[in-house]
Amino acid sequence: MKTAITPTRSENFSEWYQNLIVVADLAENAPVRGCMTIKPYGWAIWELMRDEMDKRIKACGVLNANFPLLIPIDFFNREAEHVAGFAKEAAVVTHYRLKNIDGVLQPDPESKLTEPYIIRPTSETIIGDAMARWIQSYRDLPMKLNQWVNVMRWEMRPRMFLRTSEFNWQEGHNVFATHEAANADAIKMHLMYRDYMEHVLAVPVIMGEKTPEERFAGADHTYTNEQIMQDGKALQAGTSHDLGQHFSKSFGIQFLGTDGKLQHAWTTSWGTSTRMMGGLFMTHSDDDGLVLPPAVAPYQIVIIPITRDENADALNAYSEKLGDDLRALGLRVLVDVSDMRAPDKMWKWIKRGVPLRIEIGGREMETGTVTITRRDLGKESKRSIGNADLMQNVQQILSQMQVDMLNAARERNKGMIHNVESVDALDAALQAGQIGFFRIKYDLTTNDRFEMLMDTYKISRRCLDEEDPTYVFVAKSY
Amino acid sequence: MKTAITPTRSENFSEWYQNLIVVADLAENAPVRGCMTIKPYGWAIWELMRDEMDKRIKACGVLNANFPLLIPIDFFNREAEHVAGFAKEAAVVTHYRLKNIDGVLQPDPESKLTEPYIIRPTSETIIGDAMARWIQSYRDLPMKLNQWVNVMRWEMRPRMFLRTSEFNWQEGHNVFATHEAANADAIKMHLMYRDYMEHVLAVPVIMGEKTPEERFAGADHTYTNEQIMQDGKALQAGTSHDLGQHFSKSFGIQFLGTDGKLQHAWTTSWGTSTRMMGGLFMTHSDDDGLVLPPAVAPYQIVIIPITRDENADALNAYSEKLGDDLRALGLRVLVDVSDMRAPDKMWKWIKRGVPLRIEIGGREMETGTVTITRRDLGKESKRSIGNADLMQNVQQILSQMQVDMLNAARERNKGMIHNVESVDALDAALQAGQIGFFRIKYDLTTNDRFEMLMDTYKISRRCLDEEDPTYVFVAKSY
Repeated sequence: MKTAITPTRSENFSEWYQNLIVVADLAENAPVRGCMTIKPYGWAIWELMRDEMDKRIKACGVLNANFPLLIPIDFFNREAEHVAGFAKEAAVVTHYRLKNIDGVLQPDPESKLTEPYIIRPTSETIIGDAMARWIQSYRDLPMKLNQWVNVMRWEMRPRMFLRTSEFNWQEGHNVFATHEAANADAIKMHLMYRDYMEHVLAVPVIMGEKTPEERFAGADHTYTNEQIMQDGKALQAGTSHDLGQHFSKSFGIQFLGTDGKLQHAWTTSWGTSTRMMGGLFMTHSDDDGLVLPPAVAPYQIVIIPITRDENADALNAYSEKLGDDLRALGLRVLVDVSDMRAPDKMWKWIKRGVPLRIEIGGREMETGTVTITRRDLGKESKRSIGNADLMQNVQQILSQMQVDMLNAARERNKGMIHNVESVDALDAALQAGQIGFFRIKYDLTTNDRFEMLMDTYKISRRCLDEEDPTYVFVAKSY
Repeated sequence: MKTAITPTRSENFSEWYQNLIVVADLAENAPVRGCMTIKPYGWAIWELMRDEMDKRIKACGVLNANFPLLIPIDFFNREAEHVAGFAKEAAVVTHYRLKNIDGVLQPDPESKLTEPYIIRPTSETIIGDAMARWIQSYRDLPMKLNQWVNVMRWEMRPRMFLRTSEFNWQEGHNVFATHEAANADAIKMHLMYRDYMEHVLAVPVIMGEKTPEERFAGADHTYTNEQIMQDGKALQAGTSHDLGQHFSKSFGIQFLGTDGKLQHAWTTSWGTSTRMMGGLFMTHSDDDGLVLPPAVAPYQIVIIPITRDENADALNAYSEKLGDDLRALGLRVLVDVSDMRAPDKMWKWIKRGVPLRIEIGGREMETGTVTITRRDLGKESKRSIGNADLMQNVQQILSQMQVDMLNAARERNKGMIHNVESVDALDAALQAGQIGFFRIKYDLTTNDRFEMLMDTYKISRRCLDEEDPTYVFVAKSY
């Protein structure tokens, strides 16, 4: 059977993904090393994802603010692990003017900065500097701030949405009076992320703590949500860090406690990015293109009138009217009255993953019925439904689809989690080409033999099992 | 009479403005040359401004997208006027890695870029490059794109919100098949901006076309909305440009016309930024702090219970209940039950410009009344009102305030626009210390004498009079 995308997922997952981005018109490589341009359809998905996440962030009592793009090198340098983690991928601003020299536009030597700046790879340092000024006493705590911004980490092996030099994200930075409160809040945001991923993106997660080897640069604890892609690889899609007093000590974030004593605060940071879009796409999509859960679909419904010359005007108008009725229910609806052929319209919107397709032919207009098809189930779900019935049940149909997509992904994940009793068993499984997450005693991974396997199979420790942290999940990853 | 801000506007407008930013907790200078940190209260205002502008942009059929932060120097270089206009303030990225050399963290020489990038000062070039790929035929036109992003123009004389090295803005980029359509659309977006400024920000504008001397770098026509601040200075707050074929020719944006011939398209660009916040603040605020129009106030209403020890719990609960009732009407309400003294709470929210203040004392709780005060009118508007009356009329009270603020600003502006018949008369008026906009024949300004006045008094041509473009408005400006 011909599919919209070749190669298919099973033939070559990586190429399938590249083509998915193209056929769904989501993004393209930019003429800037490692960067992408997010096209309108892709950006519309992100706006929905962002707005829903923003609501949940604000519901946690967090306030949005906006900090500078550039960070003085000196700031960056103050926390040793942090600088070690990010220095190798920092874009550096060294001049503030261009000059035409011998016919070539280049940095004006006279505009060289004494202290260069880096473009933020993350903002713990510059926000820590501000918090040190803003926090005086226990009355100022907790302080919870977030910003939606672009960041930059120079990428040598970019991959659209998953790993790009510039990306858009939210980064939250909270401050507390005690370690206990900070750690509890890091876990709270971690759980908020899971709830968001499962119930908004319909993407199930394996959650747990990162092993010491895999922690964020400058964290005491890193909590992660790991997603399992259809090819069995892991995608780290949202992390929350208990930063202890690393940054409060480096930046002097101190407060007068209730006991009248000056002490260092405890900070956290937590972030999710456009990378989640990659996880969304690679979890649900199929060989015909994108499959979007209704919660983040720019159009939840597309209406396609199957016109003939003699009824085109009437049928288009009838379809527009149905579109208005559905919009009045609060749904995002596109009525495609463009001059493309109906089958081309269908394929266009299948490829773009619109959850529910409604087709209306001349006979249906007369009988007050339509034909509906769910994108995730395809042809098998195609059925005729009366207009009144549709209006009454359409929201339920979409909610059901949202739930079904999460359950389908959960079901698939079950078959991709494997217990292994030894490093030998892990080696054998990998050699046999088994894909997915391998659950193994963490103790068994702290040796040279395991390090070798990591190199050979490009696997890594994804996270400890939250139910039994003596076990760790190991997988290939994006 | 003591005011919350010293000096007052009449004593020293510039210092008053700096202090306004502080007392209203809007922003602060960042530890990055020319940049600011927008604090949560300031950012909440921007989010409201942005969301309302975004709605209006989308209603014009514009789609949001996201283009890279960095621009290859070569791109930037392709349009001569454009590069001349922006090269002198471009932040340049020259390296992509830091290295510890002799104990000092610095750009790793081995990571030097062959072709440096600049941080976008605006995105005509990189978007033009994408559009050249995305546009093939007349069927693809018009194409209307917008992005909400940060840009950077290195500032030597920064001023918070008005002129900062990094700022947040929306930049729209539209493409058309004919010059007529492009120019008409540039004017359409220009009018959209005026409507937004007047009816959302309550800031009246003088609108018109920029003179050739003042056009955007690379434009055929620049349309501007100029605002008059309380000190009589102009603030350019939103511009829309007819770019002719400058960028379509530099970037090869071509399309097959209905006649089957390949031709260059016609482009526009249009932008508004966080600078509008400065205009909002300097138009309405007074010597006691910020005055916000209800449409963009993070809290439209603050409720302050005037408690005594014996009734604090009951009165706070009663106030919270009233707050919930008002929120149910769709209003943004803060009930201040913090442990500050009531007069301190009042001053706090006066300084932050909350449109309507509701005070409730013990007696009022018993009689079902409250005391309301409009921020723009102050004490004179203070009155008692029954709860039922309040619930029924509160939305009308806020709408009236929105309208009154626009009218008050319009009335003030009337006294700040002066007709002058000659350059001598202009000189005399400026020497006498007259403030505001001076309307003069444009022909009279194209000579050395006028150039000298520009230098002496720091005035500039703001825009042609849209009703009679042989006249130009001249003013000092931010």
